[in-house]
Amino acid sequence: MAYLDHAATTPMLDEALAAYVAAAREAGNPSSLHAAGRHARRLVEESRERIAAALGARPSEVIFTSGGTESDNLAVKGIFWSRRAGSLSRSRVVASAVEHHAVMDTAEWLGTHEGAQLSWLPVDGAGRVDPASLAELVEAYADEIAVISVQWANNEVGTIQPVAELARLAAEAGIPFHTDAVQAVGQVPVDFTASGAAAMTVTGHKVGGPVGVGALLLGRDVGCTPLLHGGGQERDVRSGTLDTAGVTAFATAVEITVKGQAAYAERVGSLRDELVRRVLAAVPDAILNGDPADRLAGNAHFSFPGCEGDALLLLLDAQGVCCSTGSACSAGVAQPSHVLLAMGADEDRARSSLRFTLGHTSTSRDVDALLAALPGAVERARRATAWKTPR
Amino acid sequence: MAYLDHAATTPMLDEALAAYVAAAREAGNPSSLHAAGRHARRLVEESRERIAAALGARPSEVIFTSGGTESDNLAVKGIFWSRRAGSLSRSRVVASAVEHHAVMDTAEWLGTHEGAQLSWLPVDGAGRVDPASLAELVEAYADEIAVISVQWANNEVGTIQPVAELARLAAEAGIPFHTDAVQAVGQVPVDFTASGAAAMTVTGHKVGGPVGVGALLLGRDVGCTPLLHGGGQERDVRSGTLDTAGVTAFATAVEITVKGQAAYAERVGSLRDELVRRVLAAVPDAILNGDPADRLAGNAHFSFPGCEGDALLLLLDAQGVCCSTGSACSAGVAQPSHVLLAMGADEDRARSSLRFTLGHTSTSRDVDALLAALPGAVERARRATAWKTPR
Repeated sequence: MAYLDHAATTPMLDEALAAYVAAAREAGNPSSLHAAGRHARRLVEESRERIAAALGARPSEVIFTSGGTESDNLAVKGIFWSRRAGSLSRSRVVASAVEHHAVMDTAEWLGTHEGAQLSWLPVDGAGRVDPASLAELVEAYADEIAVISVQWANNEVGTIQPVAELARLAAEAGIPFHTDAVQAVGQVPVDFTASGAAAMTVTGHKVGGPVGVGALLLGRDVGCTPLLHGGGQERDVRSGTLDTAGVTAFATAVEITVKGQAAYAERVGSLRDELVRRVLAAVPDAILNGDPADRLAGNAHFSFPGCEGDALLLLLDAQGVCCSTGSACSAGVAQPSHVLLAMGADEDRARSSLRFTLGHTSTSRDVDALLAALPGAVERARRATAWKTPR
Repeated sequence: MAYLDHAATTPMLDEALAAYVAAAREAGNPSSLHAAGRHARRLVEESRERIAAALGARPSEVIFTSGGTESDNLAVKGIFWSRRAGSLSRSRVVASAVEHHAVMDTAEWLGTHEGAQLSWLPVDGAGRVDPASLAELVEAYADEIAVISVQWANNEVGTIQPVAELARLAAEAGIPFHTDAVQAVGQVPVDFTASGAAAMTVTGHKVGGPVGVGALLLGRDVGCTPLLHGGGQERDVRSGTLDTAGVTAFATAVEITVKGQAAYAERVGSLRDELVRRVLAAVPDAILNGDPADRLAGNAHFSFPGCEGDALLLLLDAQGVCCSTGSACSAGVAQPSHVLLAMGADEDRARSSLRFTLGHTSTSRDVDALLAALPGAVERARRATAWKTPR
């Protein structure tokens, strides 16, 4: 099997799984005061320190959560509620038009359920937010904006956003800036403090750690209303029994992945360049989507004119090649990608797109397998489309 | 070490850990359409079916979450929001006075943040809710009540609540009833459908499964506004990448624990009875808290007059005995237990209490270790208290 869907989830690193197993074999709730509890607490706090060190944060800024979706919800809802409690007029949420659904649907819920005003930052044809458009919004609505959220890198087309510039504009206006860095960690250098962001989402299963474990990095002075109330763990921002085994495995994966980032970007970036080159040679009218240069090392995203992405996906799957039409989180939903549409693609082009994402287990054999299957699959998919909707 | 804190967290079963490792070694996001994704989806759906079968639910009623705290928050907030959206006058939350903080603090947040009215059901000296008090509330406020939440069994004193009677009263009035069954599963027979509850919280790490994985059992016709928005997983009620390894391990633990429940209750119940007998013989003025008969098999909860529970805990810990002053989730908080106070205990009695909870790894050696350490520890703790606050 050629697994070309590492952006959906990437296999757990052996070291992370070993760390999970070692910690899971010991009993103890990190909130308990006895020896077993204190031992679990030590594992959790060491994990917090390792993650903080790897991501340029202070340990006290690491709030453990159940993953990217929870961290995004916590940041956007929690900061919105906290800021609006300070001033009722601060009820606007600003986010890019290419956010993951965990930010986008959260903002929309705040709109319908909490009366928030929403502003979507447009992107250019490469999927990139122009800082000037944020500057305009901030000037127009400075006192009304509760929170700004722009991802570090796009999960579909891999385009990297100018996070530091956006965060600086937000900070100058005194507005908390959140960034979903789920796809960025381990792929590009990510430093929370240097980024200037007030809050940052990271998750385990995109970096070789476990699913169901993540963190929100949250500045000490950033107000954030909890989503989950209870025992008061995690600075009272996120209650719930701390998953000692999970956070230990998460920290192990973050540490290894961040340490290896430069070497990874070089190796996987070259492999990705080879994949792009060969796909464009095999299917000359394929279109590479996203920023041609400023993109994640593992990401290649194409439109194949005249094909249905879903059909192409299944034809490739039949040949043992795993890829995605976009975000796995909304796979199966028969709607063209909001990311492609925001980039100015028409519906046909959006529907004809496929994402190939490489990762730590990828080799040139995976690229070979894709190229062996792709030309035939594209031809079949085109015939099917032509038959269904004559063009 | 004698681990007598299984109610805080219990060691993962070997079978559950093995299931975790096997699933974690395979890649694939259950929302992906390719072969790897479909394989992960199959593991998730089989786990859903196993949990449903073990707990008397339909598979479609199982909503996977990150654990008990999230399930409690989702049920209480989600049903509250959904019911109030149907009628603005339905803004009252009813819960027992001895709920876990994950329900209690959630209700209080709805009070301060969402304008909910709160009604707390009192308990008797054994910690038991009288169904007549719920009947009165329902009669007085039927049209105003959004949701009722009463735990299946108390996490501190182990008292089992008359859930079926309470659920029936709620159902007759058309009000959704939620029960936190985190402590009950595997300890007593738990059948979701037979209980009559609209929603039920269960979690992995109290039954030998992983931390960070749980479920909300939620009737198909029960409206519940999501807490976590995003990819629309789990009936659109709970978004977030499904943790294939975690839910597989969770299902394994639930299945084994429920299958072994009767044998467990007999074995661990006898051991607990021995513990109670020997503690009362060694410390004759100790008071057993909670219902003497209708309580969880593994639970023994005492007040030791003249002792500070925290001091006693640390003295026992120094002898290798791990126990708790109450809920681990609020351990370290220097407040007397709200559960004991609701049961009519004064502050001194509440502060002098310790919880010993047995579990699947417990043997009579653990009881021996406790009894070897307890008399000396009680004597020391009494001297310390007498010195601090002359009585």
